[in-house]
Amino acid sequence: MSSHTESRFAAEVYGERLERAVQQMRTAHLDALLITPGPDLRYLIGSAAETFERLTCLVIPADGSTPSVVVPKMELAALASSAAGELGLQVLDWVDGVDPYQLVKSALHVGSRVAVTEVMPALHLLPLAESFTGLPVSATPVLRALRMKKDAAEVDALRRAGAAIDRVHARMGEFLRAGRTEAEIGADIADAIVAEGHTAAAFVIVGSGPHGADPHHGVSERRVEQGDVVVIDIGGPVEPGYYSDSTRTYAIGEPDAEVAAKFAALERAQAAAVAAARPGVTAESVDAAARDVLAEAGFGEAFVHRTGHGIGLSVHEEPYIVAGNDLVLEPGMAFSIEPGIYFRGEWGARIEDIVVVTADGCESMNQRPHGLTVL
Amino acid sequence: MSSHTESRFAAEVYGERLERAVQQMRTAHLDALLITPGPDLRYLIGSAAETFERLTCLVIPADGSTPSVVVPKMELAALASSAAGELGLQVLDWVDGVDPYQLVKSALHVGSRVAVTEVMPALHLLPLAESFTGLPVSATPVLRALRMKKDAAEVDALRRAGAAIDRVHARMGEFLRAGRTEAEIGADIADAIVAEGHTAAAFVIVGSGPHGADPHHGVSERRVEQGDVVVIDIGGPVEPGYYSDSTRTYAIGEPDAEVAAKFAALERAQAAAVAAARPGVTAESVDAAARDVLAEAGFGEAFVHRTGHGIGLSVHEEPYIVAGNDLVLEPGMAFSIEPGIYFRGEWGARIEDIVVVTADGCESMNQRPHGLTVL
Repeated sequence: MSSHTESRFAAEVYGERLERAVQQMRTAHLDALLITPGPDLRYLIGSAAETFERLTCLVIPADGSTPSVVVPKMELAALASSAAGELGLQVLDWVDGVDPYQLVKSALHVGSRVAVTEVMPALHLLPLAESFTGLPVSATPVLRALRMKKDAAEVDALRRAGAAIDRVHARMGEFLRAGRTEAEIGADIADAIVAEGHTAAAFVIVGSGPHGADPHHGVSERRVEQGDVVVIDIGGPVEPGYYSDSTRTYAIGEPDAEVAAKFAALERAQAAAVAAARPGVTAESVDAAARDVLAEAGFGEAFVHRTGHGIGLSVHEEPYIVAGNDLVLEPGMAFSIEPGIYFRGEWGARIEDIVVVTADGCESMNQRPHGLTVL
Repeated sequence: MSSHTESRFAAEVYGERLERAVQQMRTAHLDALLITPGPDLRYLIGSAAETFERLTCLVIPADGSTPSVVVPKMELAALASSAAGELGLQVLDWVDGVDPYQLVKSALHVGSRVAVTEVMPALHLLPLAESFTGLPVSATPVLRALRMKKDAAEVDALRRAGAAIDRVHARMGEFLRAGRTEAEIGADIADAIVAEGHTAAAFVIVGSGPHGADPHHGVSERRVEQGDVVVIDIGGPVEPGYYSDSTRTYAIGEPDAEVAAKFAALERAQAAAVAAARPGVTAESVDAAARDVLAEAGFGEAFVHRTGHGIGLSVHEEPYIVAGNDLVLEPGMAFSIEPGIYFRGEWGARIEDIVVVTADGCESMNQRPHGLTVL
């Protein structure tokens, strides 16, 4: 609900980002970026606005003229906590009855070639698209170059997020016990996620026993039983909006030899991918590093998803650590390394850390032990 | 996190809605509806899917052939809890590496005129739009006719939501006390919203003293003081996805005569709008009923927003109770009636109930006293 940490960085940070966005736009032969609320807006001007049916839209012209913010008059107070004022952006406020799409057009040249944030809903995109020549394009290729490489302040925020979620995993013995339902355990974990410094619990997976074999399981009324293997995948945002995301696997009582052996291979796979992550290698080579270990162990087909996803102001963003992605890693790129193994109807396991690429390797945001923790 | 109430209605409910959507589509000369996760998808097939970057899309052809669901293979388990199976929908699952937009195209005729759900993000809308002749249109005009009029099961869900939020307001004395910060009070209210039967706390406004003059205030570190007037606007969803939304205003100690007199006028304004809401009148006439009372009392300019918004699977949907909306009300329409008065830098007040239009008037979903409750 609130936080004592600042909800944005200093205004100069956003000024520099806006300048770099203009440069990228010119390279891509675009005339303007249109950014509605979401992670791109938060990245560019530090606004955590969440308006939906009433249009809020940052308009950044490529010609270097002052960007504008079209905003409902009743949201002006919320805009004041962003960097818009210090950056001297032009504010175009509107009240019910005014056509806000005309305000966006008034801030642009006729026939502009525009790019829109990928979260812009059809509700706004369709009336805006009617105003321009041809379909807009996605702003993601332009903003990817900026958002994918985190600066020092962003890495610091990811470190704080990692430490906060580590504290929740450290308390898992309080919550995860035989006889409790996944939903009960999940509710306690959600409270702990907030208590340990996140502004909200964004996701809580408690995959016990056979439910651990579904990578996207949430929680259920199933009661955890003695002998279960349990996948706990949790995270949320810390101010100013950066996410944690960490998975550990727990055993309720000592695991049998087969589970222990397979989990040991998973632990080697995760460590191999972390060791592979450094500047100059491709995203897909990091995926392959984890996948090869599990294939050699004889159950590569149990690893049914990609190795990881970028993270920052979104839980999932570029770079994706997946076969076919030949993007070359650079310092500042932040992503999950989370191989998993899934045996349908039986059990599953996953180990996930967030790492940031450094000058010669990568730094993990998560410090909890990787082994199968017996509770 | 979970609920013991079913997360959807019986499959026949959705079958009937799909048939009516097809009829509406034909009237509008559309060839297909494309529905990604959000309230429209939940309305049409009972799916609470939340995928973002991987495409999930319901494709409903107007020619009466079987609808399809394009869905990531790893989300098949989640789809199983929807009515898709019982309805016999065609499932087109895909794995990373496959182009899901081609799957959508394969389910349609060349040159189809399509309408998209208003929540579809640019991420999916732009690649889909490239596949069709011309820009898609919004599906909202087609679906409005269905979603705006609630059936008996939906009204029952809104009643349960109303009763749940009433229980939270009934407990306000536990949370709202002088010396506590708005954020502390808000955190306790959020817990109570869940404890009283919601699946989540969707929004919590604790507008104390001068903060009450900002209709969109959230919470802050301000400590509630003796003598404050405090606006509490809260709500969340109950299964299967229907929202509560109720505002009451509280006074910390006896209010002075001027506050009491102005609040009494607000109470009359809210009651006048409730009395005006019945079949055959326009949405704007309900807005005018509240507005006229405040204008006559001499501070109409303190009422700075519309009187209400529709509610159901979305917190804000049609019909909007606002000047200029000549929509004629019909039984089953559900919306808020929430006039407010705002005195910048001083205080504010709002009273909000959800009502459903009946055969000869309207039924309120909220039963808490409307007066200024002194704590």
